[in-house]
Amino acid sequence: MIPKTVEWVQLAEGPSVRMIDQTLLPNEERIIDCVTLEQVCEAIKSLRVRGAPAIGCSAAMGMAMIAGRSSAQTIDELRAELRAAHDALAATRPTAVNLFWALARMSALVDSTDDPRELRVALADEAQAITVDDLDRCRRIGKNGAEVIPEGGNVLTHCNAGALATAGHGTALGVIRGAFERHGDLHVWVDETRPLLQGARLTSWELMRDGIPCTVICDNMAGSVMKQGKVDCCVVGADRIAANGDAANKIGTYGVAVLAKHHGIPFYVAAPLSTVDYELMSGEQIPIEERDPKEVSYMAGLAERSATPAGAHIYSPAFDVTPAELIAGIITEAGIARAPYTESLAALRG
Amino acid sequence: MIPKTVEWVQLAEGPSVRMIDQTLLPNEERIIDCVTLEQVCEAIKSLRVRGAPAIGCSAAMGMAMIAGRSSAQTIDELRAELRAAHDALAATRPTAVNLFWALARMSALVDSTDDPRELRVALADEAQAITVDDLDRCRRIGKNGAEVIPEGGNVLTHCNAGALATAGHGTALGVIRGAFERHGDLHVWVDETRPLLQGARLTSWELMRDGIPCTVICDNMAGSVMKQGKVDCCVVGADRIAANGDAANKIGTYGVAVLAKHHGIPFYVAAPLSTVDYELMSGEQIPIEERDPKEVSYMAGLAERSATPAGAHIYSPAFDVTPAELIAGIITEAGIARAPYTESLAALRG
Repeated sequence: MIPKTVEWVQLAEGPSVRMIDQTLLPNEERIIDCVTLEQVCEAIKSLRVRGAPAIGCSAAMGMAMIAGRSSAQTIDELRAELRAAHDALAATRPTAVNLFWALARMSALVDSTDDPRELRVALADEAQAITVDDLDRCRRIGKNGAEVIPEGGNVLTHCNAGALATAGHGTALGVIRGAFERHGDLHVWVDETRPLLQGARLTSWELMRDGIPCTVICDNMAGSVMKQGKVDCCVVGADRIAANGDAANKIGTYGVAVLAKHHGIPFYVAAPLSTVDYELMSGEQIPIEERDPKEVSYMAGLAERSATPAGAHIYSPAFDVTPAELIAGIITEAGIARAPYTESLAALRG
Repeated sequence: MIPKTVEWVQLAEGPSVRMIDQTLLPNEERIIDCVTLEQVCEAIKSLRVRGAPAIGCSAAMGMAMIAGRSSAQTIDELRAELRAAHDALAATRPTAVNLFWALARMSALVDSTDDPRELRVALADEAQAITVDDLDRCRRIGKNGAEVIPEGGNVLTHCNAGALATAGHGTALGVIRGAFERHGDLHVWVDETRPLLQGARLTSWELMRDGIPCTVICDNMAGSVMKQGKVDCCVVGADRIAANGDAANKIGTYGVAVLAKHHGIPFYVAAPLSTVDYELMSGEQIPIEERDPKEVSYMAGLAERSATPAGAHIYSPAFDVTPAELIAGIITEAGIARAPYTESLAALRG
């Protein structure tokens, strides 16, 4: 139903990182092949592929693709190319930790053999294993989280933490899919998610393909639907979770969490444990990417004319951090962590 | 500097309600003449002119224009035309009370004389008096409210409660102008205000024309800038205020108020007393207009392609109601009302 987010493909002339270009959704379903390091980096930077787990899978495949296409004759040449690829991929986006986690898994293999051919195979296998593993984690997240959405309930989500943000199934949308599989009766409020409209463009597209009832609202309407008593719980994804449970996610997530608290609505984060950065004691330390103001003024590229006057000053942080105290639970593949998170997240890891 | 929002103009063939077409700002400054009832109604419905006080002025001028252009020979014919005009104008938008207030002022004149010529003059005079009066009220709102914005402070506003929403100067932006005139040192966070982007398109345009420093953010970034300690107060306008202080304003205002409360930031509403509906005991009774979903999916008309999949369900309420307990003060031309509002608003009226 939903095309694969990112896929390892063997073309005649070498491997490709194949993906659906998410910047064109929902108007066009274009499949692109990334066959150079520059193409993979550009695809991540420009959000052709996005979502913390999907970025990790893409970066892993990117390293494997570089190895597979490398003309390096010696292991030293190949390792040098892979180090350069690692650094370029690591520099694409600063906030999501899965990128660094996946790159670390790939880099750990670089010294595992001195045979270039064996290394190429090992990297290709690892990239595909990371992807298979991610899909499996998402399915378990979905099963573990299904209970938080009551039958007949209304759930609000922000951005896209769906099949398109992962190897498939999704994290927040995995939970929604898990609940829908269980009782078949729920409705999703989809925040459009400015500036890049991942909710309006991607989440509604995914949910409609799966026949899950949903309604798109502008981000600033979430408070109104909550006040009307039409939201039973919120479920969002995460790009990086600190050891104490503070969670960085798409800009606007924090506002949803504050509104949920004000209305007594439980607010959940769904993410694989690879999203938890156990090195960070608090969300204050998570680096927050700033995006090009044109994404705001030109409406994610949908508009040809600017919404703002020429010369207007625009501030566009890509993420915000929701403090752990606003989070009712963090839904992982190993179970639901509850406060205090420093203990519960550490326990799930073990 | 800023073209007049709405203006009474005598053309060779009869009067016109002249306005700047706000749907085209900031990319084009087109002045339009409305010379039929249909044109005035369409301009209000499609938000060529918008903002509660400006709608009131436009509707008053619309009635005067109909009278001035009427070929009615008898007072009965003229009164029938004016009753029809009143009803058509009253049906344009349901939430802003200034519309009904202005129409009531105009209708009160219809039986004041049996001379069609005298009635035409009286209506034209009254429409212009309403407009002059509105500008004067805005200036007093600005003076009264200037104190709430500290020198060097950051103020956040939502939508456009500016010169373009009134006969000039503005209500919320009147307060900002008042503070800027007083100490010349402040910065404004401008919520873009989806779906129709009145903040991005209109408020930033106005403020930049006046040399007032401002930064546009997406609505969902307000929480992040508040959390960063970069907002000292919020000031917004209102479309209708109940006797108890509950205030209907552009969708998203309620969310800003909840975020402000969470961060301990004072949240003010600025509006003339004509915005207070003393007949309504609570904001629960304020009718909330729903808008065309295309305004959401086609990005206020800026996009040629839809942001949402074909067939997506979209909910788009135009306003929300902020309960009085979230409001630090209601800034009017007669002074700042403080809680309890039932008493303070009644006192200001008297």
